[in-house]
Amino acid sequence: MVDFLVITAHPDDETAVAGLLLKAKNEGYTTGLVCLTKGESGGFATKEERVKEFNDAGKALGLDFMRILDFPDAGIEVTEEGVQSLIPILRECEARTILTIHPDDYHPDHRAVSALVDRAVFVSGLKKYSTDGRTWHPSQVLFFSLDPKRNAKRPDIVLDISDVEKQWRQVIASYPSQAIEPMLETWARYHGMLGGFALAEGL
Amino acid sequence: MVDFLVITAHPDDETAVAGLLLKAKNEGYTTGLVCLTKGESGGFATKEERVKEFNDAGKALGLDFMRILDFPDAGIEVTEEGVQSLIPILRECEARTILTIHPDDYHPDHRAVSALVDRAVFVSGLKKYSTDGRTWHPSQVLFFSLDPKRNAKRPDIVLDISDVEKQWRQVIASYPSQAIEPMLETWARYHGMLGGFALAEGL
Amino acid sequence: MVDFLVITAHPDDETAVAGLLLKAKNEGYTTGLVCLTKGESGGFATKEERVKEFNDAGKALGLDFMRILDFPDAGIEVTEEGVQSLIPILRECEARTILTIHPDDYHPDHRAVSALVDRAVFVSGLKKYSTDGRTWHPSQVLFFSLDPKRNAKRPDIVLDISDVEKQWRQVIASYPSQAIEPMLETWARYHGMLGGFALAEGL
Amino acid sequence: MVDFLVITAHPDDETAVAGLLLKAKNEGYTTGLVCLTKGESGGFATKEERVKEFNDAGKALGLDFMRILDFPDAGIEVTEEGVQSLIPILRECEARTILTIHPDDYHPDHRAVSALVDRAVFVSGLKKYSTDGRTWHPSQVLFFSLDPKRNAKRPDIVLDISDVEKQWRQVIASYPSQAIEPMLETWARYHGMLGGFALAEGL
Amino acid sequence: MVDFLVITAHPDDETAVAGLLLKAKNEGYTTGLVCLTKGESGGFATKEERVKEFNDAGKALGLDFMRILDFPDAGIEVTEEGVQSLIPILRECEARTILTIHPDDYHPDHRAVSALVDRAVFVSGLKKYSTDGRTWHPSQVLFFSLDPKRNAKRPDIVLDISDVEKQWRQVIASYPSQAIEPMLETWARYHGMLGGFALAEGL
Amino acid sequence: MVDFLVITAHPDDETAVAGLLLKAKNEGYTTGLVCLTKGESGGFATKEERVKEFNDAGKALGLDFMRILDFPDAGIEVTEEGVQSLIPILRECEARTILTIHPDDYHPDHRAVSALVDRAVFVSGLKKYSTDGRTWHPSQVLFFSLDPKRNAKRPDIVLDISDVEKQWRQVIASYPSQAIEPMLETWARYHGMLGGFALAEGL
Repeated sequence: MVDFLVITAHPDDETAVAGLLLKAKNEGYTTGLVCLTKGESGGFATKEERVKEFNDAGKALGLDFMRILDFPDAGIEVTEEGVQSLIPILRECEARTILTIHPDDYHPDHRAVSALVDRAVFVSGLKKYSTDGRTWHPSQVLFFSLDPKRNAKRPDIVLDISDVEKQWRQVIASYPSQAIEPMLETWARYHGMLGGFALAEGL
Repeated sequence: MVDFLVITAHPDDETAVAGLLLKAKNEGYTTGLVCLTKGESGGFATKEERVKEFNDAGKALGLDFMRILDFPDAGIEVTEEGVQSLIPILRECEARTILTIHPDDYHPDHRAVSALVDRAVFVSGLKKYSTDGRTWHPSQVLFFSLDPKRNAKRPDIVLDISDVEKQWRQVIASYPSQAIEPMLETWARYHGMLGGFALAEGL
Repeated sequence: MVDFLVITAHPDDETAVAGLLLKAKNEGYTTGLVCLTKGESGGFATKEERVKEFNDAGKALGLDFMRILDFPDAGIEVTEEGVQSLIPILRECEARTILTIHPDDYHPDHRAVSALVDRAVFVSGLKKYSTDGRTWHPSQVLFFSLDPKRNAKRPDIVLDISDVEKQWRQVIASYPSQAIEPMLETWARYHGMLGGFALAEGL
Repeated sequence: MVDFLVITAHPDDETAVAGLLLKAKNEGYTTGLVCLTKGESGGFATKEERVKEFNDAGKALGLDFMRILDFPDAGIEVTEEGVQSLIPILRECEARTILTIHPDDYHPDHRAVSALVDRAVFVSGLKKYSTDGRTWHPSQVLFFSLDPKRNAKRPDIVLDISDVEKQWRQVIASYPSQAIEPMLETWARYHGMLGGFALAEGL
Repeated sequence: MVDFLVITAHPDDETAVAGLLLKAKNEGYTTGLVCLTKGESGGFATKEERVKEFNDAGKALGLDFMRILDFPDAGIEVTEEGVQSLIPILRECEARTILTIHPDDYHPDHRAVSALVDRAVFVSGLKKYSTDGRTWHPSQVLFFSLDPKRNAKRPDIVLDISDVEKQWRQVIASYPSQAIEPMLETWARYHGMLGGFALAEGL
Repeated sequence: MVDFLVITAHPDDETAVAGLLLKAKNEGYTTGLVCLTKGESGGFATKEERVKEFNDAGKALGLDFMRILDFPDAGIEVTEEGVQSLIPILRECEARTILTIHPDDYHPDHRAVSALVDRAVFVSGLKKYSTDGRTWHPSQVLFFSLDPKRNAKRPDIVLDISDVEKQWRQVIASYPSQAIEPMLETWARYHGMLGGFALAEGL
């Protein structure tokens, strides 16, 4: 059973909740990560390099469950097949809390992941999709935003991650090709301002 | 005539739009600043020190009009008298664009300033309050937020201030007692993220 | 008993719901109007001229109840005394539906009327304010906006007034000093667009 | 030090968060309650009866701190004096989390309490108002709604109170004159629907 | 011609507006119901049992028009074919007011029905889709929510159904397999609170 | 390079921003227009007539770039193929500012165009879709609404078009078959009211 399961579109998307995953792990919860694409359309690195970085980040996060899928980067569609492909993973994990990307995010893939998770979570709770007679529903689905351009609202929940700063920087350092540290630093300091912390993440 | 008139509650509030004032000045517009209190309740400096800092900032901004009033710090009330006291200043400046604090800001003084300006701007346009028969209305009133805790919405307008960074840091340096640079730096980088700039201000 | 009671700030504010009042009257309901000021700060006419226009409009509307008060134009305050002064009128009318100005309207007097009505309607329902032991509450309070500048939302209810156009124009013609017809015409055509009518009013 | 301090307008308002107070107490936190009026305008009971009911409810809640003030029922005003009268209580309690009524509630007294708490919480954190040189701020202020008519949004937080149902019914039973049980039961079942619980409270 | 046409996803969804349909019928209007699936994925009953319950409910509602379609339960897609399949029904009914599920509802099928109706209603009004040269548009489309978890706003319209309580309970009793009465009772009492009624429905 | 590129669903949709295009042209900017359908389902004119009107309007607007595509009128779908078909056009234009229809507009085709543009703009900025190694992103995407029925919010930006009224009427006169002048006149006067202009457009 996975207590916190993060579902994303591209390798490095999970850095937006790296602090949450690290804190959960430190407190004894199990954590997992599913990434739908291998990020082959990004332009800063090859597919193989991105998968390697993803695996490095997974180790830095100390994940209990990790999976990278083959949806097309920059072309994720919201289809019944996509929904079906997620259900076995969801049932295998029996995740209590699912975290995925906000449905109003800027990147079309982010919005598609959000919609796929939303539907998969629902139908995985129906008997029709069960292989062993049990139905399964997560307790809650939470959303995080990967950029502030499109989503006009501030986050509802602000999580202080100052106490895991060192580990958090190691996770970010797993993605040298993407040069994401300055953006994540600003993002974390801004979320910190919302709650009176040095560094924070928003949901 | 003042093209851009900023009306605030405390010395240093105007740093939230320092970039805008500097850019306007650089482009040949006239700028002004009215601060309702002398900041005597703040705890980091005496009243005299705060007024001195305010004057230093005004010089760094190159203002054409500058006034500091005697409303009580941490006790600004929205009264008819308060409204009346602003009207002669508004009529003297004939400001085209007025910038004041957002009505949903966290500090009660900030909300009071916003309400006082809102009413003063309206009634100063009525003949009844005119001494020379002319009525006067600004073209627009814009609002800026001094902290993101309470106002759940992101700004509507993002202004790139990267080109005036050096001057902007000088204005901020006029307030050594308030230690505001880290907060303003995070705030400006975050606004920059919203529009794809290094440093920005939001309205 | 008054079925529809309109409470406004200035003579001519009621033209925003003139169609509603005319339709209600035509269908056999009783209608009333309370205006808090005599409009002495407006600049286009004297106090006496404005009261005369108000009375003319009242006749054109066929009102069952009509009252003009002496709150100061451009200076209505939200005070306990103001609330108290409205209660006897509310109890005398026993209005079923009250219509007043939207709390987000642009004019400070409009917002003050809205707040006064909001509080008066509540406390008039408490036994403490009753002189005969009965408590009284209107069935509902509806809000109309007199200008679209400040209130960012469109109306919730759109009322077709095409069938009372002739009477509606007579009401508007009662206010020659205010030159309001072009604005009301645009406003009514716009509201009509929202519901597929020639002319309409919004609440 | 009070971990959870509830500030309300009338005796029985606190029943909206009775479950939260009971759960907090059961988990070892300290709890407190400040009620601004003695409910003398309500019509179902005398002032003395209402104070007695309030004290009974306080015992059923097992409060560590309890205070009932003399603001006028159905006439609470938002004044500087009102703000000042709350500050010594706030500083005495050093409350970590403050719960008060939502600023959009229907009853004018509820909105006034919300505004008074909002301002008192802020200024009590300024040195100017300190008698011993320390400044004090609560960690957070949360809002609860006492009726759903006016506040168009559902609560952000839903708290399962099924496990304290028995105690919760005893608190409610402390107010026989107000006949509030049916309303609170519906309210709690509805909040339960939002989160999948039998009974819940919303914030 | 059908005055009120309800379009839903699953047998029993229409219970959310059963009171409205009963009241409309009692006042002499014609009513209809279209359900897109036979509810075969639900788990509490077979497809045949669900269709039987649907027919029983239809009798209890006294419907003038009733149709159950074969879209897949837990798999309704928003496709051009789906839109086309609804158009002949819409044109046959010539419904004046259409009621369907809110586009923000929790169940993916509910959102799909809402989107299909939204598009079908539009294109059925175009000449291109007409077989007899006439175009057809309903006067309005109203939305009801089947659960409050996801849709953060309260309903805009509250309809008192206390006067048809007995008939309303008979409609609900037509669905013994779904055990929906407790949920509908809480829902109706909550909506009642919004408008001051014993039982109500929200739109 | 096209400074302002408008992307619409039907011939005549661009009249909603005709004033903006005329003003931009007058100030020396380049302008363009892409229309996805030939409007063959509309009922007031043949496909050929609509294309002719579209070309006439383009001349009246003085466009630098103009394209009409063959998406099906009243049947635009949001598909990967649709997105791909727009990318070469976007790259050819290298538009700085893109204007398209608001995603909440009433007509399903309007919403589909909005979604297609939203996705095409994003993926055209990815290296994967580049033929010459360069990536391309517009500086901004702005939205305009073609009817006010569904989109509950007023526009964020109001643009005074009074100075190009004569040219604006010529553009509208290019569409005699659609009889759009009364609607556009009301729309423009209403937008004018929002900003204090005779005629305006809203974004």
